[in-house]
Amino acid sequence: MKYQLPESEIPTHWTNLMADLGPPEHPPLHPGTQLPLNPEDLAPLFPMALIEQEMSSEPNIEIPDEVREIYAMWRPTPLFRARRLEKALDTPAHIYYKYEGGSPAGSHKVNTAIPQAYYNKAEGIRKLTTETGAGQWGSALSLACGMFELECEVFMVGISYDQKPYRRAMIEAWGATIHRSPSELTEAGRSQQANITGSLGIAISEAVELAVANEDVHYSLGSVLGHVCVHQTVIGQECLKQLEMAGEYPDVVIGCVGGGSNFAGISFPFIREKLQSGRDIRFIAAEPAACPTLTKGVYAYDYGDTIGMTPLMPMYTLGHDFVPPPVHAGGLRYHGDASAVCALVKEGVVEAQAISQTEAFRSAVKFGRTEGILPAPEPAHAIKVAIDEALDAKRAGEERVILFNLCGHGYFDMAAYDQFHRGELEDLEFSEDDMNRALEHLPQAPSLA
Amino acid sequence: MKYQLPESEIPTHWTNLMADLGPPEHPPLHPGTQLPLNPEDLAPLFPMALIEQEMSSEPNIEIPDEVREIYAMWRPTPLFRARRLEKALDTPAHIYYKYEGGSPAGSHKVNTAIPQAYYNKAEGIRKLTTETGAGQWGSALSLACGMFELECEVFMVGISYDQKPYRRAMIEAWGATIHRSPSELTEAGRSQQANITGSLGIAISEAVELAVANEDVHYSLGSVLGHVCVHQTVIGQECLKQLEMAGEYPDVVIGCVGGGSNFAGISFPFIREKLQSGRDIRFIAAEPAACPTLTKGVYAYDYGDTIGMTPLMPMYTLGHDFVPPPVHAGGLRYHGDASAVCALVKEGVVEAQAISQTEAFRSAVKFGRTEGILPAPEPAHAIKVAIDEALDAKRAGEERVILFNLCGHGYFDMAAYDQFHRGELEDLEFSEDDMNRALEHLPQAPSLA
Repeated sequence: MKYQLPESEIPTHWTNLMADLGPPEHPPLHPGTQLPLNPEDLAPLFPMALIEQEMSSEPNIEIPDEVREIYAMWRPTPLFRARRLEKALDTPAHIYYKYEGGSPAGSHKVNTAIPQAYYNKAEGIRKLTTETGAGQWGSALSLACGMFELECEVFMVGISYDQKPYRRAMIEAWGATIHRSPSELTEAGRSQQANITGSLGIAISEAVELAVANEDVHYSLGSVLGHVCVHQTVIGQECLKQLEMAGEYPDVVIGCVGGGSNFAGISFPFIREKLQSGRDIRFIAAEPAACPTLTKGVYAYDYGDTIGMTPLMPMYTLGHDFVPPPVHAGGLRYHGDASAVCALVKEGVVEAQAISQTEAFRSAVKFGRTEGILPAPEPAHAIKVAIDEALDAKRAGEERVILFNLCGHGYFDMAAYDQFHRGELEDLEFSEDDMNRALEHLPQAPSLA
Repeated sequence: MKYQLPESEIPTHWTNLMADLGPPEHPPLHPGTQLPLNPEDLAPLFPMALIEQEMSSEPNIEIPDEVREIYAMWRPTPLFRARRLEKALDTPAHIYYKYEGGSPAGSHKVNTAIPQAYYNKAEGIRKLTTETGAGQWGSALSLACGMFELECEVFMVGISYDQKPYRRAMIEAWGATIHRSPSELTEAGRSQQANITGSLGIAISEAVELAVANEDVHYSLGSVLGHVCVHQTVIGQECLKQLEMAGEYPDVVIGCVGGGSNFAGISFPFIREKLQSGRDIRFIAAEPAACPTLTKGVYAYDYGDTIGMTPLMPMYTLGHDFVPPPVHAGGLRYHGDASAVCALVKEGVVEAQAISQTEAFRSAVKFGRTEGILPAPEPAHAIKVAIDEALDAKRAGEERVILFNLCGHGYFDMAAYDQFHRGELEDLEFSEDDMNRALEHLPQAPSLA
């Protein structure tokens, strides 16, 4: 069962939940001075339009026509009711999923890649640098840069670069240059050559270093930042309308969390409704057990990258130099999370659950065989939580309405599916020792207690 | 620019163009007796409902509700106007493409896999066997069998099995068993061990052999046959409505041709309009220069498979034991074509053009960088023809309306894109010598002259 909105229903504004939450108690700090960040501090990295969005108190931010026109290539995306999965689980629950994998780059990431490329082009920038984990963000930005005639240089986390040669080829097909991170092109990369698998934190350091060194080069981040979360809210806004078509309202909203923008995208418009109407909705952030930021991290000021070049942000963190085990959900291998998502977890608005890699893949296969779509490993974590909720509803005899975001397809992850089928997929454990070591390296910064 | 129909506009009937063309002058013949084929001759392979469709004179065949319900998972598929490509070509032509790659299996193939699984299940069949070239058909049937709780056994052409391990993993993820063809499981396979790359003809022989040997096992073909072409006509029917939304009518309709069902799917509803109204539309079948059935084959009775187990069908053929060069467009590596498509070429209703592998990939990259979607190598052949038509329209100063079928995405073909970018992609030439050798092996059968 598919709920499809007409093109005229592509949202005209992004939802800025930061406006609802009010000025942050703990603002981002300059990494050098540790004073609250000024817009100008970010100017070497981002165009002013995005910096304004990052700090905006407008509840709704208008989407430029040029961006909406490109969104129309794949938006509005469909919302499905998973009737075949419900039947297989024999549950009274109603399971809905929003499918973002039909975009050209195969995930929700283009929702922010397009506006980021647009605003940078408008400010006269020549090139964007970025990092990519599983490759979904790198593909999305490569495509977006191609559409706005910007150059694009991508640092891909080493383990994903090795595991996913076809993502690399895709990034190149759309015109970007790509490097395995840690590379030898940057000081940051050269200092981290011992990290064989790489990490998002290191790749970010490399991309930032290159952008800072060149006047007409900017940096682009695929998650974590406020403006990225803002851009993804087109997902949840469309869900609101589509569930209305279905005559339903969610009891639970679920999304996987790497940096947090996918989760923000589906949940923030619903969280606004909850804050405004007091409506009883649960929100669950699904994260990998191998990188359990929200469930095992400490709430503290930390850097967004490994080297410590980015502002200090309040977040649940495993330490900025934590190198997560090489799970296949490369997009979830990040030491921290978006400040807004962390704050909502801290306040109890959002719950968090950690899911093991094999549990995620078992759920992905169950989903693929009933609903047809083979999910990427990242949203497989959300599917596991959705299935658990549906089974819990069955025990409770409840017609629970469950909504989750299927943020990308798994067509580039078949090697992982193959390993799973052959029983060769390991549950890479999160080591408390590793974390303790990483936490000792937390920056000296104001306490959040 | 996207034209999206509501779910209520999924066609209720398939278009049976055979009814318009009248009884064939040259009917299919039994391979042993060479007498016109009876329905019972096909009963070991297909359920009676499909055999009836194969020989039906009904102009429109009703689509079962159960099939339409599953179609609704991805249908109606979007029609796009390729404005960014038009701009890049600086052409006055209007280029439209129908995108079938958004289906769970990534191509149009599920349009027939679902009804084939449905009718076999209804007849009490336990298992379906099949062949697959590039893997798109094998994925589609694996998915369809899973949905109707049928077992599925797939023989994958050797060269594709080697080139596309992730397609194999996908077929397995949906629950089918898969073998590299030629295999050692069948007499047909054992007799062809010298063919290292394999071919669709050999894989068909293997799958047919297994089906014939077991009462509760049937065979399923992904193209070539009449009922397969019939099922694909949902594509063209939707295009008719979508172009009406756009206020346009095509001057040229283009599809790539391997066995012919993709081409039939987009063109047959328009060919019916041409036959009924005399409307001036051109139809172009795009085939690979390495396997140029329609442009260089002879029109004769030939087998559909390599060993000679299938009925003799009138077709343009390169000889049933021709093993096409291992181009990446594995779905187009077939020695013959659907009888109906061949007859339309013979009568001059349909034109044919042969496209080289590098021309196809050059067009695919141009398309991907403007329109976002990276096409599979098969529809890249259609894109090349569409671009040529758009450039011809520019020279002629014409607002020509061009429609082509983008029948699948290229996410499993990134190794080929990679080769193309590194300049390592070869144009595998069609050898006249090879053909002459193959044609000497044409069966002794009535002449079509």
